[in-house]
Amino acid sequence: MCSTSSASRTITRRWTVAQADSQRFGARLEEAVDQFGPLCAGIDPHEALLDAWGLSVDAEGLGEFADRCVEAYAGRVALVKPQAAFFERFGAAGVAVLERTLDALREADTLTLLDVKRGDIGSTMAAYASAHLGPQAPTHADAITVSPFLGFGSLDPALDLAEASGDGVFVLALTSNPEGGQVQHARGDDGRTVAESIIAAVTERNAGEGRFGDTGLVVGATTGKDIADLGLAEALAASRAPLLAPGLGAQGATADGIARAFGPAAGLVLPTSSRAILAAGPDLSALRDAVTRTAGEVAAALPQP
Amino acid sequence: MCSTSSASRTITRRWTVAQADSQRFGARLEEAVDQFGPLCAGIDPHEALLDAWGLSVDAEGLGEFADRCVEAYAGRVALVKPQAAFFERFGAAGVAVLERTLDALREADTLTLLDVKRGDIGSTMAAYASAHLGPQAPTHADAITVSPFLGFGSLDPALDLAEASGDGVFVLALTSNPEGGQVQHARGDDGRTVAESIIAAVTERNAGEGRFGDTGLVVGATTGKDIADLGLAEALAASRAPLLAPGLGAQGATADGIARAFGPAAGLVLPTSSRAILAAGPDLSALRDAVTRTAGEVAAALPQP
Repeated sequence: MCSTSSASRTITRRWTVAQADSQRFGARLEEAVDQFGPLCAGIDPHEALLDAWGLSVDAEGLGEFADRCVEAYAGRVALVKPQAAFFERFGAAGVAVLERTLDALREADTLTLLDVKRGDIGSTMAAYASAHLGPQAPTHADAITVSPFLGFGSLDPALDLAEASGDGVFVLALTSNPEGGQVQHARGDDGRTVAESIIAAVTERNAGEGRFGDTGLVVGATTGKDIADLGLAEALAASRAPLLAPGLGAQGATADGIARAFGPAAGLVLPTSSRAILAAGPDLSALRDAVTRTAGEVAAALPQP
Repeated sequence: MCSTSSASRTITRRWTVAQADSQRFGARLEEAVDQFGPLCAGIDPHEALLDAWGLSVDAEGLGEFADRCVEAYAGRVALVKPQAAFFERFGAAGVAVLERTLDALREADTLTLLDVKRGDIGSTMAAYASAHLGPQAPTHADAITVSPFLGFGSLDPALDLAEASGDGVFVLALTSNPEGGQVQHARGDDGRTVAESIIAAVTERNAGEGRFGDTGLVVGATTGKDIADLGLAEALAASRAPLLAPGLGAQGATADGIARAFGPAAGLVLPTSSRAILAAGPDLSALRDAVTRTAGEVAAALPQP
């Protein structure tokens, strides 16, 4: 009787832990990557793409574009990344399309990462976070990107809300554009580059978590030389941070190249492709083929635990 | 006849130059500062302020709050700064309120600076800029704030659109929060801090312009010690950059303190007050009194050419 009761308590505790884990972003991401491979598919409705797909350059055309992406991506990829700027350029009407897009992906059980690169301090950072994170958020994504120009500590309101609500945050660290070095390679009084100090802060945040912590990093897919020059591969590998790596395809990065460049950290990389996949549209089956093929290539090239 | 024709050409040219000047953001800002003093009044609809004003914490309460700010601020201050995060937290409905607020201030000939701190690269940065700058923008402000974590050069699409459309851009440089130093005080290979290299890039952009160039800087009102420690007062004074200085009132900065801290650059400073003014609401006449009194104090304390 005593033993039954103890077993029952153990089962209850295990179930609670399992439930809590499955609510965490890192754990949900791990499940999705195990199922679909690590590809993150972008929704970047450039004006040129709306034109190419024969859609009007307004909120209505945007809506048709986004709906088609949802139909093509849902259930085929670990993570979908809408680029907020291309929705916001149509004002409130564009943001309404973004809300609908995120909700539709959520209903299809496909994780979303909203690329908004927000960064501010105090109650303003908290307001940005509450716009996108947590079940009450009007424009709710499973994770958002944030920018640490005001220092890593300024991001705490977003990191804390993400932790409390089971969502994630990806912090910009090392981007692939040539101008990025002006800020990201600059060194603090401790001799560390800005990129390195951000990786260290994220690592601390993810301490004790599983394969993926809830706090990720944005590290450009074509920054291999910088990772080597700055000696960051080991630090990235130890960060438990999902590494969002934009630039697959259109910017010249390949899945094999990412595996080489990220070395010991390659198993954490989520390569992102937008233009190269979207170029296959607007035909829905062609778009689905492009997503499935790219997801397969990425899964084959990158080592998964 | 020849002299008449020459005079006529001269007048035509002067008129054209004057017209072009008055369309430029820097020139419009100069006119506004001459008329009202340099105060920038914030619209920061925190949840706590909505509560304090007896308004509902939703897009409807937000709309009433913003309408009241427009009534109190229009025609009483050089520049009004809505904080995008507090509108975006209500999703598309909040962005619709923001659009209405910016339009109402424009109709009242009061300049607007939308505090959005956007930052990205290439076509994404261009999309953010087109959301807010230029006459076709759905959420059109006279200027926006941007974040240079991806390097100053990444901001070119926004700076170029602002220049072409007669709007302005304020670049984050030296913020007042303690964590900001991690990034902004870090030094590049040339020994300059990130803040200094951003000030230098803005100075280059504003070369040959009048009192205010079209490209501004965000420098916290309480960063006096950093300005002195980093030796940046002369560089700021030479930048022709309007210097948005948040922190008057609620964060402890005074107009006299700003005049001392910014030294030779004090004539470029636009001190921003949000909470200290908004605390006078919701009564409209009390709010108007607070704006007028604060604008007067700021104009008296800061040297104007």
